[in-house]
Amino acid sequence: MMKAQQTQALDINRPPANLPTMSQHQLIGQSVDMLDTPCLVVDEDVLHANIQALQTFVTSFGLKLRPHAKSHKCPALAKQQLAAGAVGICCQKVSEAEAFAAEGIGDILIANEVVGLAKLQRLVRLHRRCLHLGGELIVCVDSARAAGFMNKALEQAEQEQSIAPLSIYLEINVGQNRCGIAAGRPAAELARTIEDYMPWLRLVGLQAYHGTAQHMRSVEERAAVVDAVCNKVRQTLEAFDALGLARPKVISGGGSGSVGLDARTGLFTELQAGSYVFMDVDYMRNQWDSNIQPDFAQSLFVLTTVMSQTSSDRAVVDAGLKALSVDSGLPELKNAPGLVYEKANDEHGLLRCTTSQDGHTPEPESLLGKKLWLIPGHCDPTVNLYDELVVVRNGQVVDTWPVLARGRLF
Amino acid sequence: MMKAQQTQALDINRPPANLPTMSQHQLIGQSVDMLDTPCLVVDEDVLHANIQALQTFVTSFGLKLRPHAKSHKCPALAKQQLAAGAVGICCQKVSEAEAFAAEGIGDILIANEVVGLAKLQRLVRLHRRCLHLGGELIVCVDSARAAGFMNKALEQAEQEQSIAPLSIYLEINVGQNRCGIAAGRPAAELARTIEDYMPWLRLVGLQAYHGTAQHMRSVEERAAVVDAVCNKVRQTLEAFDALGLARPKVISGGGSGSVGLDARTGLFTELQAGSYVFMDVDYMRNQWDSNIQPDFAQSLFVLTTVMSQTSSDRAVVDAGLKALSVDSGLPELKNAPGLVYEKANDEHGLLRCTTSQDGHTPEPESLLGKKLWLIPGHCDPTVNLYDELVVVRNGQVVDTWPVLARGRLF
Repeated sequence: MMKAQQTQALDINRPPANLPTMSQHQLIGQSVDMLDTPCLVVDEDVLHANIQALQTFVTSFGLKLRPHAKSHKCPALAKQQLAAGAVGICCQKVSEAEAFAAEGIGDILIANEVVGLAKLQRLVRLHRRCLHLGGELIVCVDSARAAGFMNKALEQAEQEQSIAPLSIYLEINVGQNRCGIAAGRPAAELARTIEDYMPWLRLVGLQAYHGTAQHMRSVEERAAVVDAVCNKVRQTLEAFDALGLARPKVISGGGSGSVGLDARTGLFTELQAGSYVFMDVDYMRNQWDSNIQPDFAQSLFVLTTVMSQTSSDRAVVDAGLKALSVDSGLPELKNAPGLVYEKANDEHGLLRCTTSQDGHTPEPESLLGKKLWLIPGHCDPTVNLYDELVVVRNGQVVDTWPVLARGRLF
Repeated sequence: MMKAQQTQALDINRPPANLPTMSQHQLIGQSVDMLDTPCLVVDEDVLHANIQALQTFVTSFGLKLRPHAKSHKCPALAKQQLAAGAVGICCQKVSEAEAFAAEGIGDILIANEVVGLAKLQRLVRLHRRCLHLGGELIVCVDSARAAGFMNKALEQAEQEQSIAPLSIYLEINVGQNRCGIAAGRPAAELARTIEDYMPWLRLVGLQAYHGTAQHMRSVEERAAVVDAVCNKVRQTLEAFDALGLARPKVISGGGSGSVGLDARTGLFTELQAGSYVFMDVDYMRNQWDSNIQPDFAQSLFVLTTVMSQTSSDRAVVDAGLKALSVDSGLPELKNAPGLVYEKANDEHGLLRCTTSQDGHTPEPESLLGKKLWLIPGHCDPTVNLYDELVVVRNGQVVDTWPVLARGRLF
């Protein structure tokens, strides 16, 4: 009785033909007031300024920028980073990288470990595709066992059709204690094992990324971590020397919180910042020193509508947990004095109506139907909730960019 | 230079043809070991038992079950709830409801307020579609102003093509202080305003849902809230009497945490539980009394793979913040003694390897590549991260169901 009916006809790549679209592409040229909500909006001028500022900064140090596309998951945006001078992009997942390759982007670092048969098969196909695009796929490795599986997958693929070796970065644990082989001797020994026994892997770099450092509040804290990261990298390079191994040409790492410090180490050759394109409440809580790195401005917003207002001290907006990731804190309102986003339910955001520091109190009766701009608490997982970025300039919709890698978790 | 190239060709409903699918439909008939991860898995036997248990329970009280589809966003699953005896479904959003209507489900309550021109236009089209399907669309209203806009949208639609009045539930604030007009006299006055001035709206019920009550830990706390909710409903019905208005036929509300208590009030005619199909860590922390309501079992899991393991005290899985919503707490591991999910990063889940209470210590060397089953902290926003539910029975993949309303936020 409860057997699913005709589910075979359903395909996640092909929604039913009669399903109204969530795209707001037809609003290009119209005012942002016309947008349905909640929707994800990017201010194009601010976005471009962020892209240009970091590119100019990184280039001025003679370094390469390989921005992390996990933040935006959007090939149209990645193309602008590449046009501005980026040497390629980073992704975190094989299937995420597929979405960029499908749009013609072939220079991709999967800045993460890839383990499991299904993933390795996808990885091999993606490797071929990137070569076909004239680019290069690179992937991280942090153990001999995982490297061995990867080498085997390539060896088997070669039997079907000639394939080039896959470039890898050796990921070292620079202190975050997440992924990464221990720096120094263990890393160098893994490099030697790969060189000696895994002809289908070609070690071209070290992955030396410290994620938690990005969100440390003071410049001093971040500087101390960057120093510690550099020590780990140096230990590793010296261990390579000691084993008579050639030092990897690329030292890759850094992020939006530490990039100014990373660029000055004289050690990194390639920087991986991602969130700088958008920023968020959490990043804005960091202390910044514009003598050290460019000031990035907030370009990303969730546009929301007040959907209920039945008391003078509260209002309810249509953006809750499914429209905003709250893992790093609640969103903040832009230009809405006296309103505070106080709680996120699944589909509701609860605003408290109060009096702002400059004495402004919102008139509750004016709120119903009003559109408000929210600054997400954490940009990356918020973007992953949307299929489309609505691009605005001066209050007008100027474009829509599909977030093609949204939900690509494999 | 940084202008987007050919973004016009991109459409969020039509991904590039050469983008490899995320569907695992081709694995039907194979072992769950073949699944790529992270993926969302539902145990079909447990799911069916949950569906049947609540339906039998609600029917035994002579009440109607209208399960909330915001939990699963999956028409294939909703059809099974309907086949088991549900009178329709609830949705939270117009665009979410569209996904169910597109699959032929026409009895839908949008258990939420609908405000804004674009949404009202979609609402009118959805109303026509539900009628066409032989069903009925119902929507909540909590203010004269919002009701007036809705009435106007229908009046305008009538000018294009004859349309039936839209059924509404008056949402009253039953103590959650979110949406809902004040219970009692204000609610009855709003009902009279609608009856007198808004011919395109037809008040058929009261919406009396208390969300936070669902997650209160003790049965006593929940019982106290259900009592308070009932008082608000009674006040409202008495105010209807006092104004000489007919009492609404439907009293709708209740949820997975309180449904046993709700069913016993003698007041509700229709119950809206949603999460009972899946359950999650947060719901499992509630105290339950199986004399009061059926025991629901955990049917929903995120399958994940250990992708890195470089130290004896930790392992890293491939399911982080983009694979699991952590708003109500971290996921828990099923059948993995000695492993604790300790921290979620964007694409990484950090496991601590420890010694379980029964003395079991996982062997770190055995972990790399191992698949683990995670129980999500909060089911609803976790499901919203996936395009597909993989259905398993006895360790085999038996079906895949698209989560067609995923991301439908309008």
